[in-house]
Amino acid sequence: MNNSEIDNLISLLARLPGIGPRSARRMALNFLKKPESLMKPLAESLITTANSIVNCKICGNLDTEEVCSICNDKRRDTSTIIVVEEIADLWALERASVHSGMYHVLGGSLSAIDGIGPEDLGINSLIERAGDNEVNEIILAMNATIDGQTTAYYITDQLKECDVKISRLAHGVPVGGELDYMDDGTLQTALKARQPF
Amino acid sequence: MNNSEIDNLISLLARLPGIGPRSARRMALNFLKKPESLMKPLAESLITTANSIVNCKICGNLDTEEVCSICNDKRRDTSTIIVVEEIADLWALERASVHSGMYHVLGGSLSAIDGIGPEDLGINSLIERAGDNEVNEIILAMNATIDGQTTAYYITDQLKECDVKISRLAHGVPVGGELDYMDDGTLQTALKARQPF
Repeated sequence: MNNSEIDNLISLLARLPGIGPRSARRMALNFLKKPESLMKPLAESLITTANSIVNCKICGNLDTEEVCSICNDKRRDTSTIIVVEEIADLWALERASVHSGMYHVLGGSLSAIDGIGPEDLGINSLIERAGDNEVNEIILAMNATIDGQTTAYYITDQLKECDVKISRLAHGVPVGGELDYMDDGTLQTALKARQPF
Repeated sequence: MNNSEIDNLISLLARLPGIGPRSARRMALNFLKKPESLMKPLAESLITTANSIVNCKICGNLDTEEVCSICNDKRRDTSTIIVVEEIADLWALERASVHSGMYHVLGGSLSAIDGIGPEDLGINSLIERAGDNEVNEIILAMNATIDGQTTAYYITDQLKECDVKISRLAHGVPVGGELDYMDDGTLQTALKARQPF
């Protein structure tokens, strides 16, 4: 029914996760209403970014430099490394401004179903970094899912030869969470890990 | 926290309706994982489309030609025109393949709050089209909202001099709809417009 160029735009947008055909059409129509103010700047931004973005060779974050701005920042504490599954997790922690140390992005989690083994993740490079004398704590911040926790156990096992402290994020009731809405696993974990008040 | 180029990409994406900062970040990350297969084709598609798309001078639909493929299609019935608020509505009707006639896109609906008057919509061009001898029915397919219905009444009033039949879409319980979930207005309309069975 549509013009083939509009169809092509819609099908490209529909390839984004969380964007179905209906949202893609809505997005395309909104683009088409703003050719000069939105479509062209976005096209330029996509090309510039696509050409300049690389993964940081130390932590795996995305940046225009080989060593990202976090790894390159001399003010940051190089003695602690937070290990995360995805770059989005790193961004989330940075947005919360809760960590002034370094990061390490695995690029996913171990998953038998998806056929993702240790060699597919940045685990070897993490072991190498953990061997550095400057590093004295590795904080595992995988997702609280089965795959995430399996990955955390695997990494703990691999790091036992290294002389570093290994910790993980606390599990429990999220801040602002209501008990009534929590699942059994969360309630059990929160109760087990209860703390003196 | 991010690279400025990534930030720029995120802020452009966040300008799309229905895309908040969080979705924009997710989209940007997904783009960044596929620079060659997604970012560059999308950038090209945006530029090509932005440079070639125009509004059809007859009905207001978007196309690469001055007269869109629907208005240009000799097999279509030129005697009926469906009037819609937005191009998205035209696309929805075309997807459903329920109309083989012509369309007319108003570009919105009358709205006192938003300061949208008759001169901001394609109402004059509709009156002109309705004057054509070939046209014998105008179907008003505005949204079933207050603004949409106000616009429909206004257009009916403007067209009373023309020798055309004016109809509107039926209102009632949508197909697949459960009475329990319908609002009072829908139930009342459906009851009033009940039909012999």
